[in-house]
Amino acid sequence: MSFKIINQDGYARRGVLTTKTSEIQTPVFMPVGTYGTVKAMTPLQLKEIGFEIILGNAFHLNLRPGLDVIEKFEGLHKFMGWDRSVLTDSGGFQVWSLGDLRKIHANGVEFKSPLDGSMMNITPEDSIKIQLKLDADIVMIFDECTPYPSTHSQALESMQLTHRWAESSKKYFDKMHRNNLIFGIVQGGKYLDLREESLKHMMSLNFDGIAIGGLSVGEPKSIKTKVLQALADKLPSTLPHYVMGVGTPEELVEGVRYGIDMFDCVIPTRNARNGFIYTTNGILKIRNSKHKNSTLPVDQDCDCYTCSNFSRGYLHHLDKCNEILANTLLTICNLAHFYKLMKQIQGAIEQNTFEEFVDLFYDMRGLKKPKL
Amino acid sequence: MSFKIINQDGYARRGVLTTKTSEIQTPVFMPVGTYGTVKAMTPLQLKEIGFEIILGNAFHLNLRPGLDVIEKFEGLHKFMGWDRSVLTDSGGFQVWSLGDLRKIHANGVEFKSPLDGSMMNITPEDSIKIQLKLDADIVMIFDECTPYPSTHSQALESMQLTHRWAESSKKYFDKMHRNNLIFGIVQGGKYLDLREESLKHMMSLNFDGIAIGGLSVGEPKSIKTKVLQALADKLPSTLPHYVMGVGTPEELVEGVRYGIDMFDCVIPTRNARNGFIYTTNGILKIRNSKHKNSTLPVDQDCDCYTCSNFSRGYLHHLDKCNEILANTLLTICNLAHFYKLMKQIQGAIEQNTFEEFVDLFYDMRGLKKPKL
Repeated sequence: MSFKIINQDGYARRGVLTTKTSEIQTPVFMPVGTYGTVKAMTPLQLKEIGFEIILGNAFHLNLRPGLDVIEKFEGLHKFMGWDRSVLTDSGGFQVWSLGDLRKIHANGVEFKSPLDGSMMNITPEDSIKIQLKLDADIVMIFDECTPYPSTHSQALESMQLTHRWAESSKKYFDKMHRNNLIFGIVQGGKYLDLREESLKHMMSLNFDGIAIGGLSVGEPKSIKTKVLQALADKLPSTLPHYVMGVGTPEELVEGVRYGIDMFDCVIPTRNARNGFIYTTNGILKIRNSKHKNSTLPVDQDCDCYTCSNFSRGYLHHLDKCNEILANTLLTICNLAHFYKLMKQIQGAIEQNTFEEFVDLFYDMRGLKKPKL
Repeated sequence: MSFKIINQDGYARRGVLTTKTSEIQTPVFMPVGTYGTVKAMTPLQLKEIGFEIILGNAFHLNLRPGLDVIEKFEGLHKFMGWDRSVLTDSGGFQVWSLGDLRKIHANGVEFKSPLDGSMMNITPEDSIKIQLKLDADIVMIFDECTPYPSTHSQALESMQLTHRWAESSKKYFDKMHRNNLIFGIVQGGKYLDLREESLKHMMSLNFDGIAIGGLSVGEPKSIKTKVLQALADKLPSTLPHYVMGVGTPEELVEGVRYGIDMFDCVIPTRNARNGFIYTTNGILKIRNSKHKNSTLPVDQDCDCYTCSNFSRGYLHHLDKCNEILANTLLTICNLAHFYKLMKQIQGAIEQNTFEEFVDLFYDMRGLKKPKL
């Protein structure tokens, strides 16, 4: 009911996802707003680019400012002044990435707070409770991210834990009877048999969407492709498909080619703050001294606020002087690039010309198009 | 020709200053944009608040990005994407504040570059040349800031140096035949006889405006008041009067009471980044933990973007997490407060109710109104 496919072109789908807050045109890239802010952006700037959904993080927001604060605002939307949709990470990945500071047990994870070192515990039920108090439009199950590398038996065990947590997450979510959506997360590491088993399990639990987790954890790119390949014709046709933590422009294009509808990644925002700017001709490193005198915009084909009003020379200067405005203007650049890429992808799928678009995409960057 | 008085109420004047770029309603507060950016603000955000003029700094911009870069853009306006007026500091104050790193001589100042330690030299002619290449709407003479404390003979000597530099500055400026404006700077330290002598000298040099320099250099507040008092009825009635580096909201109100038309100061922008927020009821320290749960805006009487969309609790959280957005939103708050204060002052002068406004201003802050 919440997801409608407008057109399909190969595996690529052009859809509309409706949450309790807003409509989201897919395929979509979702900027990451860990602490209730997409770094260096006002909500107005995000809306001016066009974004319809952003990410929040249950783990981090639970630590700071804490749920008691966000409850006063009846959720994350009002707290951060964002009136479009929000998807929250369950905290599974963040707890997992604490490494030695966490101990995973059957019912959840015990961990040392990275803020004050106190011992804390989080269960699947806790995670869903937090996400519902944040009032995320899309809630993610609490999962265990399978590390790379893992043996088959380690990946199996980890996947089985995620499956039990998926059941606990869904059960708690259903009990709360709320109009939020909940997505399952497929794990299984690099093992395609486990990935398929995990997908089947998630499909059996009646989720509103299916996410593929545990990618972008240090594995070679070929594994990411193989997993997407293996799942492409097995993903449920009526639900949205979301690859978590992905990716570069190339990875977004490849993801869509394998039927992925949703993406999130810190790449555009983090890289902007490090001076790596995405353009239609590839990456431009604004710190390179060759830009010092340049009166050109970052991307002549771009009409974002930054490219419409500022030059490479000015952005180079701001970055060199460590001016806060450098972060804002460069983040606008990168986010606008990612947003427009998804709009172009959407348009191409609507017109059944997606593979032609992919050809052009690789041509402009001087790259070879990977086989499907 | 460039300055028109609309109304006068006591010493307070309501005017319009016309530069080659734009009209500026006075009394005016000018945000400081040292390196070609008002810290944490986009030009659009500055315009949305309403600012008609900002400051740039000849000394800093000459070091970074360097004049060769800014010349490529035909000046600072295009370089920084700001199509309203710009006033530039001459660098006199900045060179002076280098302390042991500079040596003042009759023709200018020799100094060690704070960037790379190389020896550099700047003369009054250099300063005007730089400012004209920046194409500032308002150029300031190169002056020596008289330190506090100084003996009468030290202040006299320093003032005489400024007078010679004022002549050199004006001579070079006139030779260039440009449609920029140039302001003289009155020095003389805390000595009222010197201040009056300096004012007379500056008035003899046919400047487009008269600035009062060398205040806010560590002297007690009472000295600032005494200098303004002493000059109030001696300032030229047809020219704009500018107090440099001032000040707090109280100092702006007091300045206008003594006939000052223009102010600049880093207070609203710097204090915002340190969590000190100006409101109609005085200063609010956003870092105070009492704001953690507050759903109130910073200032309920304020309609700026920040106060219209965000709470004290959210701003407290952003500040605590060192989020870049905290700087942006809090700077908007403070700058909007300063802008609106000047608008209220303008309105009161127009209606000949300025002293009633001053009464109310001090009442709301629970402060005693100083005698004129």
